[in-house]
Amino acid sequence: MNRRIRIPALGLLAASLLAVSAQAASPGNHPAALGKIRDTAMASDYAWERTADMTDLIGPRLSGSAGAAAAVNQVADAMRKLGARVTLQPVKVPHWVRGEEKGELVEYRGRPSGITQRVVLSALGGSGATPADGIKAEVIVVSSFDELKARAAEVKGRIVLFDVPFDQHMAERGLAGQAYGQGSTYRVNGPRLAAEIGAAAALVRSVGGANYRLPHTGNSGLQDGARIPAAAVTVEDAMLMSRLAKRGPLSMRLVLTPQILPDADSYNVIADLPGTDKPDEVVIVSGHLDSWDLATGAHDDAAGVASAMAVFDTLKKLDYRPRRTIRMIAWMNEENGTRGARTYLEAQQANAGKHIGAIESDNGAGRPFGLRASVPAASAKLFAPLQAALQPIGAGVFQRQDALATGDLSGLERAGVPSFAPLLDTSTYFDYHHTAADTLDKVDPDNLRRHVAVMTATAWFLANVEEPVGRANVPVK
Amino acid sequence: MNRRIRIPALGLLAASLLAVSAQAASPGNHPAALGKIRDTAMASDYAWERTADMTDLIGPRLSGSAGAAAAVNQVADAMRKLGARVTLQPVKVPHWVRGEEKGELVEYRGRPSGITQRVVLSALGGSGATPADGIKAEVIVVSSFDELKARAAEVKGRIVLFDVPFDQHMAERGLAGQAYGQGSTYRVNGPRLAAEIGAAAALVRSVGGANYRLPHTGNSGLQDGARIPAAAVTVEDAMLMSRLAKRGPLSMRLVLTPQILPDADSYNVIADLPGTDKPDEVVIVSGHLDSWDLATGAHDDAAGVASAMAVFDTLKKLDYRPRRTIRMIAWMNEENGTRGARTYLEAQQANAGKHIGAIESDNGAGRPFGLRASVPAASAKLFAPLQAALQPIGAGVFQRQDALATGDLSGLERAGVPSFAPLLDTSTYFDYHHTAADTLDKVDPDNLRRHVAVMTATAWFLANVEEPVGRANVPVK
Repeated sequence: MNRRIRIPALGLLAASLLAVSAQAASPGNHPAALGKIRDTAMASDYAWERTADMTDLIGPRLSGSAGAAAAVNQVADAMRKLGARVTLQPVKVPHWVRGEEKGELVEYRGRPSGITQRVVLSALGGSGATPADGIKAEVIVVSSFDELKARAAEVKGRIVLFDVPFDQHMAERGLAGQAYGQGSTYRVNGPRLAAEIGAAAALVRSVGGANYRLPHTGNSGLQDGARIPAAAVTVEDAMLMSRLAKRGPLSMRLVLTPQILPDADSYNVIADLPGTDKPDEVVIVSGHLDSWDLATGAHDDAAGVASAMAVFDTLKKLDYRPRRTIRMIAWMNEENGTRGARTYLEAQQANAGKHIGAIESDNGAGRPFGLRASVPAASAKLFAPLQAALQPIGAGVFQRQDALATGDLSGLERAGVPSFAPLLDTSTYFDYHHTAADTLDKVDPDNLRRHVAVMTATAWFLANVEEPVGRANVPVK
Repeated sequence: MNRRIRIPALGLLAASLLAVSAQAASPGNHPAALGKIRDTAMASDYAWERTADMTDLIGPRLSGSAGAAAAVNQVADAMRKLGARVTLQPVKVPHWVRGEEKGELVEYRGRPSGITQRVVLSALGGSGATPADGIKAEVIVVSSFDELKARAAEVKGRIVLFDVPFDQHMAERGLAGQAYGQGSTYRVNGPRLAAEIGAAAALVRSVGGANYRLPHTGNSGLQDGARIPAAAVTVEDAMLMSRLAKRGPLSMRLVLTPQILPDADSYNVIADLPGTDKPDEVVIVSGHLDSWDLATGAHDDAAGVASAMAVFDTLKKLDYRPRRTIRMIAWMNEENGTRGARTYLEAQQANAGKHIGAIESDNGAGRPFGLRASVPAASAKLFAPLQAALQPIGAGVFQRQDALATGDLSGLERAGVPSFAPLLDTSTYFDYHHTAADTLDKVDPDNLRRHVAVMTATAWFLANVEEPVGRANVPVK
C-alpha cells in the first residue's frame, strides 16, 4: 500500500527534476519509471508510423538494392529528428539480384499432348543461374538427407527436389522456431549437398505454414565453386511434383537467371542516446534494415527496426536519460550475409566488455509474452522489476536460455554480450516469412505497441541496472 | 424395429435380383438402396482419382485452352470406361488469353528517389489490353459505386481502383456465398461502369478471404465497345494503394496484354445412363470442366465434375439401373460465358419438361451438410427418405429455395427444371477461389466422398421417385 502511494510521488519528483535540467539524474529502474515507459509506449503509434514509412514508401530492401539504400536514409533521418547522435557505419554487402524465374513440368506419365504444368517458384538467395533459355532435366524427389545419400548415384545432371513438409502442428504448439529450424536446414544445406554430388539444380519445398501457392525464399547457403541454380517451390507445387514423380519419370524445364554483382556499399545505421553516468557502457536495441525482395518485409524486419527506433521516441516523450548509452542499430544484411553484424563486431571486439546487453527484435511483430535472455542463470532474478512492469500488458514472462543465437547478435553473444529478444507468439509468423505476403496489413498495431513497451523497458532496465546482469556464456557446440 | 429388420432382407433380395439380370427392376428409393448408395460412395476414391487426373495431369482449363480440350477427352474417356453412352456436344466458346501483367506505383508522396512499388495483380477475364509498354495514369480509389458516381468528373483518363473489402466475418458465419455476391458485384460491374465514364483502366480489390498476396481473378463483365484493361489486385496491394492515395496523388504504370482470339471449338461432355422405365425422362448430374487459368481448379470445379462422374461409378459398382435416365454433364465455359449451358438449353428447350431435375456441384468440395433444391414448397416433404439416407453422414439437411440461380443451371431452372446442389461448408472456399492456390491439396478426400454420396443419392432418388417433385417456379425479379 505504502509502495503504491510512493510511486506517483517519485514519478512527480523525477519529472520535476528533469524539467529543471536535461542532465537530470536518471529516474532509474524504479517501478514508476518502468511503468511510465510501458504506458507511454502503449499510447503511441510511432512504431506503426515508422513501419508504414518503411514498407509503404520504400518496400523491399534486399542488400545492395535501392530500397536498402533508401531505408538507411529514412531511418537515419528519423533518428536525427529524435535528437539521436547518428553514425552510418560502412558495410560491404553481397549484391544478389533476382532474375527471370520459371518452372514447367514438361514430361510425366499421363501427360496429355500439348500440356505442361507451371511450377511456382522463387530463386533462393545466392542461387546460381541457368542459361537464359533454362535447363531441362529429370527431377529426383527426396524427403531427407538420408534419401539423398542413398540415391546419390541418380543425382548427377538431375534436379533434386527436397520435399520435406513444414511441421505446422509443431508451429501451432508454440514451437514455430523449432519447426522453422527443422525445415530450413534443407534450404540452407540441401542445395550445397546436391551440388556436391553433381545435381544440375536444387529445389526445396517452401519452409513455412499456410499454403497459398507462395514460395518462401531465403538464403541457399551456396558458395562460389559449387553454385547451382536453387529455388523454393511452393508447397502445392512440391506436392504436385511428388505425386507426378510417383506416377513415373518427371522432367522439368527450369529458368533461373539471378545475378551476383560486385559487393555493394551499404551501412549499419547507428544512433546513440548517450548515457548520463556511464556513457562508455552500451545497451543495443536493434532490428535489421534489409528484407527479402519478394515483399515489403513488414514483419521481417521493418517492425523490429521501428520498435527499436521507438525506444528513443518513448524515452524522448518522457524526457528520460539513461545512465548508460542506449544504442539503436538498424543492421544491414541480416538476410544474406550478416555483414552488418560482422562489421560492427570487428570494430567493437575490443570493446565487447562494455556492451551490457544487446536486444534484437527479429521474429515478427506477434503478440509479446515477455522476454528471452541469454544471461547467467544466477542473474535471472534481477529482472523481477522488469517483469513486474510488463506483467500488466501480459508480457511478464522471463525465459532464460544459454544462447539465443540470433542472426545479428550471435557474434556479440559469443563475445560475452547477453542477447535479449521479445518472447513472441510466432504461430503465424512463418505463414508470411520470406514471402510476398509479408506486408503491413499483417502487423497488428496493438501488438506493435506491446513490442515497443517490452523493448523500451528492457533497454531502459539494462541501461540503469545497478548490479551487473552478467556475461553471456555461450556453450561451444 | 420391423423396418430395420426388413431393410437388409430387401437389400439381399435386390442384390440377388440384380445378380440374375443386368436389366433387373430398379431397387427404387427404398431406404436399403439409398443406404447402399451412400455406403458405396463413402468407400470409394473414384472421385478423388478423377480430381487428381484432371488437376495433376492437365492443370488449368480455361475455355479455348489446350487444357480445356484435354479435359473434354479425359472425362469422355473415363465415362466410356464406365459404360456410359457419351456424346460430345459442340460449343463455341470465348477464347481469352492472359498476356503480360505488371503493375507499378511510380509516383506518390514520400517516394524516395529511385523507388517504385510493385503491385501484384491478374487481369480479369475479358479485360482489354494496354499498349505493350503499358499506360501510366493517376489512380482514383473508390469504396463504392456511389463514390464512383460522386467523383465521376475525376475519372476520365485515370485508373479506378474499387477497394471494397470481402466480408470475411460474414463468410465465417456460413454466408460465404452472400459475401462473395456483395464483393463480386464490383468485379462484374465496376470495370464497365468505370469504362462508361472514361476510365483508362479499372482495378478491383480481390474478392475472397485469406490474404496471402494472391489475386483472385474472374470475369470482368466487359463487352466489346467499352473494353478497358481490368485486373484484380491483391488485398494487400489494394490496401497499400489506398494508404498511399491518402498521402497524396498516386500514379501507376499498368501493363496488361491479354488477347481476345476468335471463338474456339469446344464441347460439353454428356454421358447417359439410360433409364429402364422412362428413358426419355432425364436427371442431370453435373459440374463444369473449364477453370480459370491461374490454378488447376481443384475446387472450382474439378471436384464437381469428378463427383458427377462418380455417380455413374457408384451405381455401376452396385449394378443399379435407374428408372429414368441419369445424365452426367461436364459443362464447358461456366467461368466466362456459360456457353455450354446455353447451348444445351437451346437444344433441349422443347424437352425441358422431360427434365425432372438438374444437380450441379460448383461451390467447392467443402463438407456437405445436405441438399439445396428449387422445388415447390409442397414437394419438400417428398425428400424425407433421401434426407434419412444422408443423415448418418451428417448430410440430412434439406434447404428449399425458390431458385438456386447457379451459373450452368439457371437457364434450365427458368425453364422449370428444379435445381439441386450439395449444401456445403463454404467458409474457406473463397480463400482459394479463382486464385493460383485452388489446387488438389485443398480438397479433403473424405469430404469428397460425402459429396459423391449426396450427389449419387440425390440423382438416384430423382431418377426413381414415384410422385412428381414439381417444377421450379423461378420468381421474376
